[in-house]
Amino acid sequence: MQFYLNGFRTGDPELAEPSAPTEPGLPREVDVLIIGCGPAGLTLAAQLSAFPDITTAIVEQKPGPLELGQADGVACRTMEMFNAFGFADRVLREAYWVNETSFWKPSQTPEAGIIRSGKIQDTEPGLSEFPHVILNQARVHGFYLDVMRKSASRMTPHYHRRLQDLHLDPGSDYAVTAQFENLDTPGVIETIKARYVVGCDGARSAVRRSIGQTLKGDSANQAWGVMDVLAVTDFPDIRLKSVITSAEHGSIVLIPREGGYLVRIYVEMDELESGERVAARTIGVEHVIAAAQRVLHPYRLDVKEVAWWSVYEIGQRLCDRFDNLTADSAEREAPRIFIAGDACHTHSPKAGQGMNVSMQDAFNLGWKLVSVLQGRSPPQLLRSYNDERQTVAQELIAFDREWAAMLSAPLKSPQHPEGVDPAEVKDYFVRSGRYTAGTATHYTPSLLTGTSQHQHLAQGFTIGKRFHSAPVIRLADAKPMQLGHTVQADGRWRLFAFAGAENPLTETSAIASLCRFLQHAPGSPLLRHTPKGADIDAVIDVRAILQQPHRDLALENLPDLLLPPKGRLGLRDYEKTFCADHEPGQDIFDLRGINRQHGCIVLVRPDQYVAHVLPLDDHESLSAFFAGFMRKL
Amino acid sequence: MQFYLNGFRTGDPELAEPSAPTEPGLPREVDVLIIGCGPAGLTLAAQLSAFPDITTAIVEQKPGPLELGQADGVACRTMEMFNAFGFADRVLREAYWVNETSFWKPSQTPEAGIIRSGKIQDTEPGLSEFPHVILNQARVHGFYLDVMRKSASRMTPHYHRRLQDLHLDPGSDYAVTAQFENLDTPGVIETIKARYVVGCDGARSAVRRSIGQTLKGDSANQAWGVMDVLAVTDFPDIRLKSVITSAEHGSIVLIPREGGYLVRIYVEMDELESGERVAARTIGVEHVIAAAQRVLHPYRLDVKEVAWWSVYEIGQRLCDRFDNLTADSAEREAPRIFIAGDACHTHSPKAGQGMNVSMQDAFNLGWKLVSVLQGRSPPQLLRSYNDERQTVAQELIAFDREWAAMLSAPLKSPQHPEGVDPAEVKDYFVRSGRYTAGTATHYTPSLLTGTSQHQHLAQGFTIGKRFHSAPVIRLADAKPMQLGHTVQADGRWRLFAFAGAENPLTETSAIASLCRFLQHAPGSPLLRHTPKGADIDAVIDVRAILQQPHRDLALENLPDLLLPPKGRLGLRDYEKTFCADHEPGQDIFDLRGINRQHGCIVLVRPDQYVAHVLPLDDHESLSAFFAGFMRKL
Repeated sequence: MQFYLNGFRTGDPELAEPSAPTEPGLPREVDVLIIGCGPAGLTLAAQLSAFPDITTAIVEQKPGPLELGQADGVACRTMEMFNAFGFADRVLREAYWVNETSFWKPSQTPEAGIIRSGKIQDTEPGLSEFPHVILNQARVHGFYLDVMRKSASRMTPHYHRRLQDLHLDPGSDYAVTAQFENLDTPGVIETIKARYVVGCDGARSAVRRSIGQTLKGDSANQAWGVMDVLAVTDFPDIRLKSVITSAEHGSIVLIPREGGYLVRIYVEMDELESGERVAARTIGVEHVIAAAQRVLHPYRLDVKEVAWWSVYEIGQRLCDRFDNLTADSAEREAPRIFIAGDACHTHSPKAGQGMNVSMQDAFNLGWKLVSVLQGRSPPQLLRSYNDERQTVAQELIAFDREWAAMLSAPLKSPQHPEGVDPAEVKDYFVRSGRYTAGTATHYTPSLLTGTSQHQHLAQGFTIGKRFHSAPVIRLADAKPMQLGHTVQADGRWRLFAFAGAENPLTETSAIASLCRFLQHAPGSPLLRHTPKGADIDAVIDVRAILQQPHRDLALENLPDLLLPPKGRLGLRDYEKTFCADHEPGQDIFDLRGINRQHGCIVLVRPDQYVAHVLPLDDHESLSAFFAGFMRKL
Repeated sequence: MQFYLNGFRTGDPELAEPSAPTEPGLPREVDVLIIGCGPAGLTLAAQLSAFPDITTAIVEQKPGPLELGQADGVACRTMEMFNAFGFADRVLREAYWVNETSFWKPSQTPEAGIIRSGKIQDTEPGLSEFPHVILNQARVHGFYLDVMRKSASRMTPHYHRRLQDLHLDPGSDYAVTAQFENLDTPGVIETIKARYVVGCDGARSAVRRSIGQTLKGDSANQAWGVMDVLAVTDFPDIRLKSVITSAEHGSIVLIPREGGYLVRIYVEMDELESGERVAARTIGVEHVIAAAQRVLHPYRLDVKEVAWWSVYEIGQRLCDRFDNLTADSAEREAPRIFIAGDACHTHSPKAGQGMNVSMQDAFNLGWKLVSVLQGRSPPQLLRSYNDERQTVAQELIAFDREWAAMLSAPLKSPQHPEGVDPAEVKDYFVRSGRYTAGTATHYTPSLLTGTSQHQHLAQGFTIGKRFHSAPVIRLADAKPMQLGHTVQADGRWRLFAFAGAENPLTETSAIASLCRFLQHAPGSPLLRHTPKGADIDAVIDVRAILQQPHRDLALENLPDLLLPPKGRLGLRDYEKTFCADHEPGQDIFDLRGINRQHGCIVLVRPDQYVAHVLPLDDHESLSAFFAGFMRKL
C-alpha cells in the first residue's frame, strides 16, 4: 500500500479525501448507471468508485443490503481480484479454506451405505498464491460496500428502486434514460440519465429485456435442494468439501462454511417432468433434510438450525450478446447498455462458478468504461466486453452442463449402462481444477490481446490468461512479496520489464534503453497516453524485475524512470524495482519461464490479464500495441 | 475464526451481540477502571472488552483519540499478540516491514562523509511467523478501538477527563474511588468506584503519584531530535532501517514508515549540561533537519513536509513496584491499583521498545484481572503482575542504557579511546536481535511458571518464554496453519498435548488416557476449574497435535474430548486436533524439539507464555499446577 504521496494525513489511509458532497437521492445525470447490487454490480461500483472524476450511481430493487448468502464459493482467481480491491486478507481470515475434496461412493453391500473412495488436494500446488475459499455472499458484498464507502465520493447504493423503463437515444451524450419507481414512496418516479448503463439485475433482468436479449437454453428436469445448516453428525468429512454418490438416493455436494460449524449441503431431489418447474412442487426444507439423510446413510445428520435453504432446477441458459448491439451494428457502433452476471448467464450453483464469473464480467468491463470516460480510449473499446465475456460464458455453460449431468446421473450398473462411475466424477473434478479455480480463462488475440509470436520469452505468462503472480524481493526495502500484488484495481496498465542476463544498471543495458525510450522518445506510449500534469505512471505503470540478488544491486544506479518523482511534492517512488528471490524454488525467472538471456516485456491489463509479451528492445511494437486502443493525448 | 456456535447470524461475525445498553457518561461503579488511552490502556481495555460480565471504564485526559503517532515500532512478539486480538493482518497490510538493517560509518577521508559498512537481515529466520514492522501508534490505537467497539459492551473511552484524586479503602469491595474533572464542563467532578484501577497514564502518571511511587533513574545529558518527514534524497537506503554514524556530527537512526514515502529520522543533537533538560533549549525543527543533513553528508536531504517532530533527552527511569503494595504488605495483601507502560518505565525510543513493552505489561495483567474477577483465582494472583513485569522493565532499562550510550558515544579514535567502533554497534544490534524482537522475555519459576524438570520433552518451548508458534495441519479440514494462532486473547489457558510415537487413536494411547482423565477424573483441572454449564473448553482449551500425516488418521476415532459438543445447540468443535506438516522443514516436532517417543503436554497462559512442560501421563502434576492458582469451583 502506498499513501501520503501528497502529504501526511491522520487516520485510515484507505479512507480517501472526500470529493464534493453529493445530493441525497438519485442524481439526475451520471456517467455510469449500475442496476443491481449483486456481485457483478458491486464489483463494478467498487472499481468505478476509485475515480472521483467519473460519476456513478448504483441502484437496487431490494430495500437494503443482502443479509443471507446465496453464492459462497470464492475461486483462487477471484481472491486475486479481491486482493486488487484490498480485501483479500479479510476474506482469508474469515472464510473456510477448501484444502481437500473428499469423494464418497456406495459400499459393495448396498445396505451399508456410503464409503469414502478417496481424498484429493483441492487446488494444484502453485496454481495461485491464494487458496480456494468459501464465504457467504453477503460478506463479500459487505467488503465491496466498504471499498465504495471509503472512496472519495463515499458511494452507497440507492436501495428500493424498481426499474420501470430504460430508453436509449443514441444521438445524445447522456444517451440512456432510466426511470425508477421509488418503493419507499410508491408512485414516485425518478428519472436518471446516463452515458452508460450496466444491468447487473440477475436472472430476471429488466435491462436484458430492454435490449431485446433473452436467456436461451434448457432446464434439466432435475430438482436440487440446498441448505445452510448447523448440524450434529458422525459423518467424518463434515469439515471437508465432499462429493457423495449414494447407490439409490442420489448425490450430495457438501461444502463446509466459514466459522467452523456451518455447512452447506446440495442434495439431489426429485426428477421433474419434462417442462415442469420446481416451483410447482411443494418441497419443504424437511424434504431436503430427509433426502440428505438418505444419501448420508449409515451416518446420521441431526440438523439443529437451518440458516437458509432453497430448491431449484438445474438449467444452463445464456444470452447471445452482452450489450445493446447486434452482430451487424457492432461493426459501426459502440455499445451503451451492457448486462453482466446472472443477467446474461445462469447455471447450476454446485461448481461454485456463478458469483466468480459474474464478478469477473464486471472487472472486465470496469476499466474499459474508465478508459473511455476519461478520454483515453475510443468508445469502440467497449465492444470487447461482449467479445471476451460472451465466450467465457459459453465455456461456463458447457462445463456446468457436463458437471451437473454427472452429479445427477444414475450410478453405472447393468440397469444403467449410461450411468456414471464415481471414479469418473473424481477424475473430471481433477481435470477441471484449473477451470473451477478461474484461472483457465483465455482471451484470444484482439486489439487488447497480442499474438503468441514472442510467447517463448515468458512461457509462464500466457498471453490472454490472467497474470500468474510469483514471489520477488523489492529492491529498495528488501521486502519479500508477490509481484502480482502490484496490480491494484486502479485502472492502470502494468509494464513489467524483466531484465536479461547483462548488468541492468549500465547505461547500455536493454532495461536502461527501454526506460530512456519510455521517458523521452516521441513514440513512447507513456508520453503519448499520459495526461499532462499526471504522474508518469498514471496510465502505464512501469516496473522492472532484475535477476541479481537484491544486495548485489545499487539502487542509486537505477534508470530515472524507476525512481520517478511523483505527486505534489515530487517525492520519489521507490517501489518500481524488484529482484528475483534466490531462496530455493522462488525465482520468478524459473517459475514463469522467463528467458534469462534476453529478458522480456510483459504487459498486464488493469483487470490482471496478460495482454502481450514482447522483446525488451521492441519499442516499436510496444508503441503500436497501445496505439491500437488508446488515443494520443 | 470460529463463529455461529449458538446459531447463525447475519453481518460481521466479529461484531458481538450487544449486552445491556450502558448509560452515557462515566459509570458509578466498575470492576476495572483504566486511566489512560495509550498502548497499555487500550491493550487492557480490548482484553477486558471480551468479557461481558466484567464492567470496565477507560478514561483519557485528551479530548479524543491520538491522531499523530509517537511510537511506531511493532516487534515480532507484539505482532503475535495483535494476532490474538484479531488485527495482525490489518497491521501487516498497512505497515512498513523491517526486512534489513543497514549500517553506515565515516569514510576514510572525512570530507567524503558516510559510507555503507554493511547490511544485515533484521530478524533472524524462524524467530517468529511475523515480521518486525513499523506503524504509526495512532493506527495501532485505532485497531484496538475497533476491537472494543465491536465487543458486547460496545466499549469506548471517556475522553477529556482529568484525574483529580484516587483514594483506596482496602476494606471495601469497590475499594478505589477516583474523581475526575470533566474538561468539557470545567468544574464538574465525576466520581467512580472500582474494584481495580490501572494507571496507564504515561510518564507523568497521576496514578503513580497516588500510590507513592516515583520514576528513579538518570537522564543522560544528550538531546535527540526526532521527525517524521516526507523528503527527497539521494541517500540510497532511505527505505531501509539505517544506523548511521558520522565522523564528527553524531549519529542517526533512520526508520522508513508505512505508505512508501514517509520516514522517521532520530538524530543526535547537542550535548546538554549536567542536570539540564532539553525543554530549556530552543531547538526548532530546522535545527533537527540541519543536524540530519550534516550526518547524511555527502547525501542530500530535502525535507518537503514535516508530519511530526520532537526533541527529547535520553533517560532511563523505573519504579520500584508496579502496584500499590510494598515489599512487606505484598506478603499478606493483594494489590488493587496497578501502573503499566510509561507510568512505570521510561527510556529512549530508538530501540523501538516502549510501545511494545507497555502493551505486554497490559497483556500480562489483563487475563489475571479476568481470572480474579470471574472468581477463578484468588486475588493474590495479581501480585505476579509486579513480580513478572518489574523484572522485564529492569532488563529493558539496562538494554536501553547500553544501546543509547553506544549511539551517542563518540567514534573511537586516539582522542576518544573510550569511543565506539561502528562495527561494535552492528555487533551489538545483531546480538540483541531476540531482545528487540520481544521474544527474549523469560519469566522465572513461580506459581504460574513451572520448573525445568521436563523441559527436555519440548526443548523449543522454553518454560517462561512466549509460545513460539510453528506450522501444523488441522485434521478435520486439512488446513495448513500456525498452531500459535489458536491462542486468542480470550483469557483461556491452552493445553497442547503432543502425542508420542504410538498410534494416538487407540484407547490405550497416552493421548486417549489423558483425555479420559481430563474428561472424567475427579482431579481433572477441567472439571475442577470450569464453571457449571460452561463449555468444556471455557477455561482450559485442550488441543492435540499428532505426528502422523493427516490423511492417515481417522477423525472418527478421536477421543470424545477432542470433538467436544459445545454451545446452545451442542455442535461439535472440529478444531481441536492438528497433525505435523510433513512438508520439508515444517514438522513442529522437529522445529520445537518435541520428544517423538513420549510426546508431552505444553501449557500456555492466556498471554501466550509457556507455563509448563509435563509428561503426557503426569496427570497429578497437571492438576497440581492449576490448583496452585485456580480455585476449585
